[in-house]
Amino acid sequence: MANPVLPSSGVLSPLGLDSVRLAAGFWGDRAALNRDVTMAHCQEWMEREGWIGNFRGQRPRRGREFSDSEIYKLLEGMAWADHPALPELAETVGRAQEGDGYLNTRWSGNRYTDFEWGHELYCYGHLIQAGVARLRTHGEDRLTEITLRAADHVCRRFMDTTETCGHPVVEMALVELYRATGAERYLEMARRFVERRGLPALGDIPFGRAYFQDDLPVRQAQVFRGHVVRALYLASGVVDVAVETGDEELLKTVEAQWERTLTRRTHLTGGMGSRHADESYGEDFELPPDRAYNETCASIASIMLAHRLLLATGDVRYAEVTERTMYNMLATGVALDGRSFFYANPLHVRVAAAPPEGVNHAAEGSLRSQWFDVSCCPNNIARTLASLGAYVAAADSGGVRIHQHTPAEIRHGELALRVETGYPWSGGVTVRVLEDGAGAVSLRVPSWASGATLSAGSGPARPVAPGYATAQGPWRAGDEIRLELPMEPRWTYPDRRIDALRGCAAVERGPLVYCAESVGDEPPLAHLTVRAPVPPAEVPSAEEDGTAGGEAVELEVAAVRAAPRGNGWPYGPEPDQVSGGADTVLRLVPYHRWGNRGPATMRVWLPVAE
Amino acid sequence: MANPVLPSSGVLSPLGLDSVRLAAGFWGDRAALNRDVTMAHCQEWMEREGWIGNFRGQRPRRGREFSDSEIYKLLEGMAWADHPALPELAETVGRAQEGDGYLNTRWSGNRYTDFEWGHELYCYGHLIQAGVARLRTHGEDRLTEITLRAADHVCRRFMDTTETCGHPVVEMALVELYRATGAERYLEMARRFVERRGLPALGDIPFGRAYFQDDLPVRQAQVFRGHVVRALYLASGVVDVAVETGDEELLKTVEAQWERTLTRRTHLTGGMGSRHADESYGEDFELPPDRAYNETCASIASIMLAHRLLLATGDVRYAEVTERTMYNMLATGVALDGRSFFYANPLHVRVAAAPPEGVNHAAEGSLRSQWFDVSCCPNNIARTLASLGAYVAAADSGGVRIHQHTPAEIRHGELALRVETGYPWSGGVTVRVLEDGAGAVSLRVPSWASGATLSAGSGPARPVAPGYATAQGPWRAGDEIRLELPMEPRWTYPDRRIDALRGCAAVERGPLVYCAESVGDEPPLAHLTVRAPVPPAEVPSAEEDGTAGGEAVELEVAAVRAAPRGNGWPYGPEPDQVSGGADTVLRLVPYHRWGNRGPATMRVWLPVAE
Repeated sequence: MANPVLPSSGVLSPLGLDSVRLAAGFWGDRAALNRDVTMAHCQEWMEREGWIGNFRGQRPRRGREFSDSEIYKLLEGMAWADHPALPELAETVGRAQEGDGYLNTRWSGNRYTDFEWGHELYCYGHLIQAGVARLRTHGEDRLTEITLRAADHVCRRFMDTTETCGHPVVEMALVELYRATGAERYLEMARRFVERRGLPALGDIPFGRAYFQDDLPVRQAQVFRGHVVRALYLASGVVDVAVETGDEELLKTVEAQWERTLTRRTHLTGGMGSRHADESYGEDFELPPDRAYNETCASIASIMLAHRLLLATGDVRYAEVTERTMYNMLATGVALDGRSFFYANPLHVRVAAAPPEGVNHAAEGSLRSQWFDVSCCPNNIARTLASLGAYVAAADSGGVRIHQHTPAEIRHGELALRVETGYPWSGGVTVRVLEDGAGAVSLRVPSWASGATLSAGSGPARPVAPGYATAQGPWRAGDEIRLELPMEPRWTYPDRRIDALRGCAAVERGPLVYCAESVGDEPPLAHLTVRAPVPPAEVPSAEEDGTAGGEAVELEVAAVRAAPRGNGWPYGPEPDQVSGGADTVLRLVPYHRWGNRGPATMRVWLPVAE
Repeated sequence: MANPVLPSSGVLSPLGLDSVRLAAGFWGDRAALNRDVTMAHCQEWMEREGWIGNFRGQRPRRGREFSDSEIYKLLEGMAWADHPALPELAETVGRAQEGDGYLNTRWSGNRYTDFEWGHELYCYGHLIQAGVARLRTHGEDRLTEITLRAADHVCRRFMDTTETCGHPVVEMALVELYRATGAERYLEMARRFVERRGLPALGDIPFGRAYFQDDLPVRQAQVFRGHVVRALYLASGVVDVAVETGDEELLKTVEAQWERTLTRRTHLTGGMGSRHADESYGEDFELPPDRAYNETCASIASIMLAHRLLLATGDVRYAEVTERTMYNMLATGVALDGRSFFYANPLHVRVAAAPPEGVNHAAEGSLRSQWFDVSCCPNNIARTLASLGAYVAAADSGGVRIHQHTPAEIRHGELALRVETGYPWSGGVTVRVLEDGAGAVSLRVPSWASGATLSAGSGPARPVAPGYATAQGPWRAGDEIRLELPMEPRWTYPDRRIDALRGCAAVERGPLVYCAESVGDEPPLAHLTVRAPVPPAEVPSAEEDGTAGGEAVELEVAAVRAAPRGNGWPYGPEPDQVSGGADTVLRLVPYHRWGNRGPATMRVWLPVAE
């Protein structure tokens, strides 16, 4: 079962890469680009930066203290993609492993002296995830051998201590290794790491212990807080432990934390993280569009967590959050060329600046960068796109549930299905039955899809409500199931408590968030207000899509162009009303496509003309 | 001339602490509390933290790499206040000075190996400012001897290099030492530091060279950018160099940078800095109330710069900015008890949290902290309040210009004046002539004071426009000049380009910005919108002022209380309008007084009911 998450119980069973094969389309194209271009790009940069050379004993060592993990993330991606470069890279990694299984190019000789910032267990976590991927796609080899030796070293060293790592990930990795091998020590080690966190297990740091979720035991916390990637990786591991140990209460705790986070600490794009200083959530409703951090890796972590909760609970809502995050964060994180990346994903960019050539220090800029000082995101994208098929569908006892509508072939039990769709550009999804057989086929109907219809075979189209639309078999080869999702663009307004969005509206269409992008800042976005709720109009894309996923849809909205008042002290006795402005039209592009046409300003949330 | 800034030319001449004596009142009380309480508080904490012990050779050394400068700032404050603890503390400092004048407890033995972050020249800068203060208030002693040896070391070491410091301040300190001693090498050294910056003179850092203003030569920059304190300390030094070298073009350059910064990068309180990550300005109009950084030290730097520009140009606008920053930033930075401090000064706080006891790592919290890891602000407040008299008035060839209306005695030439006022709580300012004599007396009329009147002697009150209201002599002892400033509270609205403030208004009264403070979050500020422009009403303060400056004025504004819509996904198809809410009244307190009554939420910018 070629699957990154394989719980032994749960409402739904995942369908892995051996059950779901992506075909040409929005995600299939991106997965192919990832395998053909992005992975080599990442490997080249990590050679150039010396992060791979560290495993060859290069002196001085180069890169940050956690750079080993970047190679492991790429190895995981290569495992899912059966990439030919894997064996040699794994061999290189193995050269740095010590006799007792210890493996870290930064801390060798100085082991476990800095749990707050050392990232040693974090690196093992990513190594183990790579090893699990290899076990499940290929079977035992050098990479899995390295992995097991490292994991056993971790269990020996940490089973009976009170220590843990400043950056979670080893928890979910160990549970998955337990699932892949059946060795219960890995589960027990993960459980202990989860339970000892927050007692506290780590020293205090200037950011405070909430930064690495050590401020409270996980069972007492009410919301995700602190560093977003850390919080979501930890929560993923907690779900895994809860599921494998049958701890319903622990699972419900994470669900409640997720609920509050989703409704108070999540940007429209599904992105999480409002503070640059410590890459953290802010307070409830602290959701600034301009300084939204929304790290690409955080969105990947969010997808990982939502997927686990979907499998455990069967609640389709988690699949909808995954979709939102996939289309508006994951797809945004990498450019259409597959070679440049966003680290932060703000919803408003005021200055059209190009990133520096080569390594970008900052997680900022109006164009994607080839590489970063802390270059977690490119490799994280690589491993996620390589395993994306595993997020498309799942099984229950009655059949298959299709959660993400994208061209693919899906096989499970007697069901052999081909999904054909131009989604998200168009709303029709056809599931073609390839072989005779039985089993229910359920298609997810998003909550915005009021007016959706489903037809099966020659039957009439019937209205279906948000949730699942199900067609029962039995099936004959050639049968068709057709879901029609309404794709009218729609205005979306924020909760009043999100102060930073007051007086603004955004446009969505299907699962996509749209934005105004002003290449060269002409017209200046600061001069425009929009006439919501005048319906947006669909217009042909001004450019080639660059993918086989259908023609990208752009939008136009009615707007008013009026210069703001003068340039003195920016606070005065009268409201700065828009008056006397000229009617105009503002072009909107899918948010995930912005920043592909040169330096630009951008905004998702558009001020509404009074 | 007991004056922190003493230019050899300029439109105005400063009046120092020997010419202006603060009396009981808003600022006089704070200066007294500062001398009697705050200075000892700072010294005690720096002993406890070991920062003073470093000068005694304590091992291991304690504190951050720049902690020496904190002792120097306190020494400067003690010099202005003629504090009895100064001589012994100066003696302690001197023990760490080396034979060639070098003095730094962090880098001794490893001198000048890190110009980006080492802060060695920065520390000298603060030492020199302390030495200048001592020279001008007391004359030569141990502290001035240490200072001159260090300054001469700096000139020898750096006159012919291309190096400079990652944190400016030595520039203005050296110019002042030149002014105090007449030794031209100090001016020349300052000039070279200014001119070599941005060529570039420093290495690149992850924040980028704009962080320490090394991205561009100062003559090419169009706005203040990067780390705010660095930017404003540098600009102060540039003005000093421009004035002493007669470089009009350089002065005009700083004026233009200031103009753009004031109109696009300044919060209503006069605070500057919108980013926590690098304590920097953001882009133009990036002015979030909740994540406003507005470091207390930045406001002090802003006052230092505005004062220099006022003296150089005579433009009364600079005095108004100084007033705004003094009442809404400097007065906010220290609690009414004189023993706790704000580091960051946001305009919106969502969570009522108490700071940790003892040292506060973070520059955050809804109450002031006794001390911080980086505790620049308390000592900076101490030296500023100790020298505040120097900002009250200045002289021109015709007489005296009073810029800050606060009880004081002012003597200059034949003029001997006593200012009596309950300002900023009431709007009447009486200048009583103490001795017969001649000379014009000008009082600043703020730009908001439309309807102000001036009367002199038994003459009628006449309307005066914003700017200066001038009464000519000659004077007889007992004559009175009376300025009446209208103090009606007023609504203030933001420029439309400040996205974070859309749909909000704030209330000001006189020079004071007001805020809603909800101790214990009851009523929850998130549920309230205000009925601007219904005029706010004045109400007696619910509490003792705690100062002799008059009874604090609080305000009430009409408001609507309505819970926001439900708690699901916070983005929906309909605007989240306030409807069906209950009319209520919202109490506002002066912003500088918030956070003195226990943990609270707070907001300056109030959403306006539609």
